[in-house]
Amino acid sequence: MKYCSNCGKPVSIKVPPGDNRERFVCDHCETVHYVNPRIVAGCLPVWENRVLLCQRAINPRAGRWTLPAGFLENNETVVAGAIRETFEEANAVVANPDLYTVFSLPHISQIYLFYRAELVSPQFAPGFESRQVKLFEESEIPWDELAFPVVQETLEHFFADRYSGVFPVRSRDLIIDRDPTRFR
Amino acid sequence: MKYCSNCGKPVSIKVPPGDNRERFVCDHCETVHYVNPRIVAGCLPVWENRVLLCQRAINPRAGRWTLPAGFLENNETVVAGAIRETFEEANAVVANPDLYTVFSLPHISQIYLFYRAELVSPQFAPGFESRQVKLFEESEIPWDELAFPVVQETLEHFFADRYSGVFPVRSRDLIIDRDPTRFR
Repeated sequence: MKYCSNCGKPVSIKVPPGDNRERFVCDHCETVHYVNPRIVAGCLPVWENRVLLCQRAINPRAGRWTLPAGFLENNETVVAGAIRETFEEANAVVANPDLYTVFSLPHISQIYLFYRAELVSPQFAPGFESRQVKLFEESEIPWDELAFPVVQETLEHFFADRYSGVFPVRSRDLIIDRDPTRFR
Repeated sequence: MKYCSNCGKPVSIKVPPGDNRERFVCDHCETVHYVNPRIVAGCLPVWENRVLLCQRAINPRAGRWTLPAGFLENNETVVAGAIRETFEEANAVVANPDLYTVFSLPHISQIYLFYRAELVSPQFAPGFESRQVKLFEESEIPWDELAFPVVQETLEHFFADRYSGVFPVRSRDLIIDRDPTRFR
């Protein structure tokens, strides 16, 4: 941020009165511009004993497999965002979403929330950001070709929890040095 | 948003190529400015059979009682934000935080996440944004003077779940017409 989105004049980095950390503050109209983490909402779509993965058509991690997910929009609930992204990336319709994993990724200021959800039918097709979309049994998961650690962890939890049939919400912080795409 | 934070020239509202909704786009440098929901992180601090509430010193809802909570900062985990807000608003130190409630408030583009947490000691004091801070037994909760519906719901779940000793994560959307401070 270099200019004030309110008046168009340059901003400086300083600690506003009554605050305790540096913000972008307009030198002219004194508007304080807060920058906050973004939410990524996604689904783990399930059909019988298989899960739906999307092969990414775009960077980062083009060619790698992921769960459908994307940035939450204003005036949207988290679950609505997860359902929308599943439709946009996989043309898949899901039902009965249940919050399942919550990840903080402080190095990139992103918070991920994934929902387990049932595919309404085994109908799906790649959306704009996907190269292909496919159902995988546990033994078929391309573990070495997954796009993001949050996808790997969500799938690991799912297959482990499936034995007990109990799927508690899993909440964890992923601390990764520099490369947001690097695995543990 | 009226001006581009990248180049200082005016922005227009339009649908960028490859997108499907209106964004602020710079007429000059073509930067697309996304606006996303913000996360509010908070704690339900517990000491023996009592919970810690803060009486708000600031608007909205000055004079009403709330759980310590506030906007998540960049490069912060959700749980770290919840712990920090508890310290800032109540000078209280908590341990063993467990994710407990998740609320979407689409009308104000906010996502709340509250953690149950143990007070390390019964020591606390009002921070800058609090008039007073106090421990309440269930029978003492000022139900008619709570600040926000998310606080009421989190407390209701807590006292109900306390009977069983099992505290599953509760995830819900709060749909409120206009006034973000109005109760159901």
